[in-house]
Amino acid sequence: MYELHFAVPMSGAVLCTLNTRHDSTMVSLLLKHSEAKLLFVDYQFLHIAQGALQILSKTTTKIPHLVLISECGHPLPPHAKGTLIYEDLVAKGNLQFVVRRPKDEWDPISLNYTSGTTSNPKGVIYSHRGAYLNSLATVLLNEMRSMPLYLWCVPMFHCNGWCLPWAIAAQGGTNVCQRSVTAEGIFDNIFKHKVTHMGGAPTVLNMIINSSPKVQKPLPGKVQVMTGGAPPPPDVIFRMEELGFNVTHSYGLTETFGPASICTWKPEWDNLPQDAQAKLKARQGVAHVGMEGLDVKDPHTMKSVPADAKTMGEVMFRGNTVMNGYLKDLKATQEAFKGGWFWTGDLGVKHPDGYIELKDRSKDIIISGGENISTIELEGVIFSHPAVFEAAVVGRPDDYWGETPCAFVKLKEGCSATSEEIIQFCQNRLPRFMAPRTVVFTDLPKTSTGKTQKFVLREKAKAMGSLTKKNTSRL
Amino acid sequence: MYELHFAVPMSGAVLCTLNTRHDSTMVSLLLKHSEAKLLFVDYQFLHIAQGALQILSKTTTKIPHLVLISECGHPLPPHAKGTLIYEDLVAKGNLQFVVRRPKDEWDPISLNYTSGTTSNPKGVIYSHRGAYLNSLATVLLNEMRSMPLYLWCVPMFHCNGWCLPWAIAAQGGTNVCQRSVTAEGIFDNIFKHKVTHMGGAPTVLNMIINSSPKVQKPLPGKVQVMTGGAPPPPDVIFRMEELGFNVTHSYGLTETFGPASICTWKPEWDNLPQDAQAKLKARQGVAHVGMEGLDVKDPHTMKSVPADAKTMGEVMFRGNTVMNGYLKDLKATQEAFKGGWFWTGDLGVKHPDGYIELKDRSKDIIISGGENISTIELEGVIFSHPAVFEAAVVGRPDDYWGETPCAFVKLKEGCSATSEEIIQFCQNRLPRFMAPRTVVFTDLPKTSTGKTQKFVLREKAKAMGSLTKKNTSRL
Repeated sequence: MYELHFAVPMSGAVLCTLNTRHDSTMVSLLLKHSEAKLLFVDYQFLHIAQGALQILSKTTTKIPHLVLISECGHPLPPHAKGTLIYEDLVAKGNLQFVVRRPKDEWDPISLNYTSGTTSNPKGVIYSHRGAYLNSLATVLLNEMRSMPLYLWCVPMFHCNGWCLPWAIAAQGGTNVCQRSVTAEGIFDNIFKHKVTHMGGAPTVLNMIINSSPKVQKPLPGKVQVMTGGAPPPPDVIFRMEELGFNVTHSYGLTETFGPASICTWKPEWDNLPQDAQAKLKARQGVAHVGMEGLDVKDPHTMKSVPADAKTMGEVMFRGNTVMNGYLKDLKATQEAFKGGWFWTGDLGVKHPDGYIELKDRSKDIIISGGENISTIELEGVIFSHPAVFEAAVVGRPDDYWGETPCAFVKLKEGCSATSEEIIQFCQNRLPRFMAPRTVVFTDLPKTSTGKTQKFVLREKAKAMGSLTKKNTSRL
Repeated sequence: MYELHFAVPMSGAVLCTLNTRHDSTMVSLLLKHSEAKLLFVDYQFLHIAQGALQILSKTTTKIPHLVLISECGHPLPPHAKGTLIYEDLVAKGNLQFVVRRPKDEWDPISLNYTSGTTSNPKGVIYSHRGAYLNSLATVLLNEMRSMPLYLWCVPMFHCNGWCLPWAIAAQGGTNVCQRSVTAEGIFDNIFKHKVTHMGGAPTVLNMIINSSPKVQKPLPGKVQVMTGGAPPPPDVIFRMEELGFNVTHSYGLTETFGPASICTWKPEWDNLPQDAQAKLKARQGVAHVGMEGLDVKDPHTMKSVPADAKTMGEVMFRGNTVMNGYLKDLKATQEAFKGGWFWTGDLGVKHPDGYIELKDRSKDIIISGGENISTIELEGVIFSHPAVFEAAVVGRPDDYWGETPCAFVKLKEGCSATSEEIIQFCQNRLPRFMAPRTVVFTDLPKTSTGKTQKFVLREKAKAMGSLTKKNTSRL
């Protein structure tokens, strides 16, 4: 996949990387939607790809050629017959080939299907111009000097790995790739390769801090970690830093080429108490140099919300490093760019220093008895309970309140807690109306990039029915 | 000048910074050529500016407004009457002013008159697009993370300070400015402000290494130094590194927004002997990410020279960070861009690893008896003589040989050497024909950016007449 980040654009084609967790049906849909001509597949996913082509052949005769990527020294699987072999093609490559540059710098370089936390995947189009600028900006965002040593924990198929394949090449860096992301693998690789930089969703960080002390090797030097995808709970950041990592909280979306805004740490914050530091670190709002505009706006007036840390608005971006649009979806594109800004669907407030604190996805916010409840805030509190490994909160439909907060909680191995304990814990730390009314102990459904699939949980909460019966008095 | 790097473009105007060493006549010429509307002047140069306006008033009625920049707490000079005062204008500024963005990103942001080592100054036009990309690239080139501490030794009027005013702002850095550049000031400022980065011509480096041990304070940390303007003699680089500086050799021109190509240090070179390291460090050839094309080409065929470290060609650039052109000089612009590349006028060879070694300015190379003599190579050897502080070599016209090498040498204070010693020293280290035939002990004429004005020396050498009389036998 790393090589294809260069080979495909240099051949004048568009790169579309697919999520390795998709099944054959989803892959066949995306192949059809993208009109892919060539399908490169790792030997571990050959059966998925072959299944997808089989499904595809039922509705169209335009079937992409299959190119198998085998592992060095690994024998080809028996069902690989008839496929092209990647290394063979490379060996037969034409050294005189002249790179086909884009005619226009706004021409597409890649197509990225969104991870689908809220809806069906949409095809996000990146331009050469945007990818170029974002690659430079991400080097700066990651505080990289030349020749960084990068450990891949972010899936490279996701937002073109935040443009880091290109960024690391531009800096003459080294890439360390892993077939699977485990705490042991992370510590081993950091130690072995003297890793300087890595990235990962808060779930990856959570995995690191909750790993057995046996696998936790001392770091050979400071490791810069870019985290994003969801605001990291303050506790996670602290425990990472205790292990010697330096965590930067970033915020962005597939539509912004990955991280677009970070929490730039101010030296004067070094002397604040840990609690205050954690709160600051969970904010962001300093857009990288490639992104012209970042604001929190009133969705009705399109005016900036006051920087009062209270007034909620929608986070919006504009600039070179915002997507061209959604492939074959003019309506969604127009909606996303209403008023000349890209609407993220994330709600937040602006602090007096201009930093932004996300409160919720506009679709996730719970409105209970007319009050907004930030699920992110509530999740942060639940997470700080010593027995809790992970938590996600959604609205449970309610006949009286409209919605009530419903928490899905995964406990740490060997730990126990009751619903009442969790609720009490929250009531002690938050306004009473914000505490969950329901607590469900369960594993959380995840996307491959580690984001919790809240729409799945929302379905579960819906199926529970109303907590308050109609015409009952207030609880 | 730092503030004007932002205020002028934000007002929709073009910034043209002038060399502080120009006299009133030169300033009047450049004001006329540039059609400047406002002239901002530091109080130390008020008399130059007023003189220039007086000269200008003899030929035109379009006289720019004069705005005086006074130093905080410094009383205005008596002759400042009638000028506008910078701080007064700032105090009356309109906070509601809406930034006037360029209509097109290729619109000019600044005009830079070349330093004129070879000819009359030409007005080099920088675009917003080029300046933006070069600013990002120069952050990477200087190995800056966020919040760098930059000590200004490069004049900010020169190539817009290599775009560092914008680059350092983009990185949230701190600028330390000095009214004059002295070794003592440099060490004091590094110590006081914990400087992380600086830049300077090899003459600045020379000043540092030859300064009295009394002023040489220990550095609080590694200081990254970007040097350029002329290839630094290997000895200079070494002695800088002994003092704790990390020197990167860069190459570029006003037309390429300053440094465009550097000597990227390869880790495997760390183990080479000092001599070999010094030779490698004096090369360059890794263009920054903002510069698409860098090559050494045969000026007749426009083909790349072979990477054999022998075949000389002209160094050429192309990309976003090459100037738009010369103001009001279509002929010079067309000539500079013949064949779609920018011709630097510098001759060099390409090494097998792709790195470039400059041999000479195409106008400086000496052709003696049909043999090319690289003045850079010869100067490097003379410089390694323990008594030599500085050296510059030009061709002395010769009736028999065409030219012979003529060296102008400044000795270190308290040191002595004879012409014969210098010539012998070179003959012991170079092919005999490359050794100078004439050695003149003198101060070297300099441009304000520290480059030796070879055209002045060439005039002197010419005035000496031929060394060999016509019809004499070979020496």
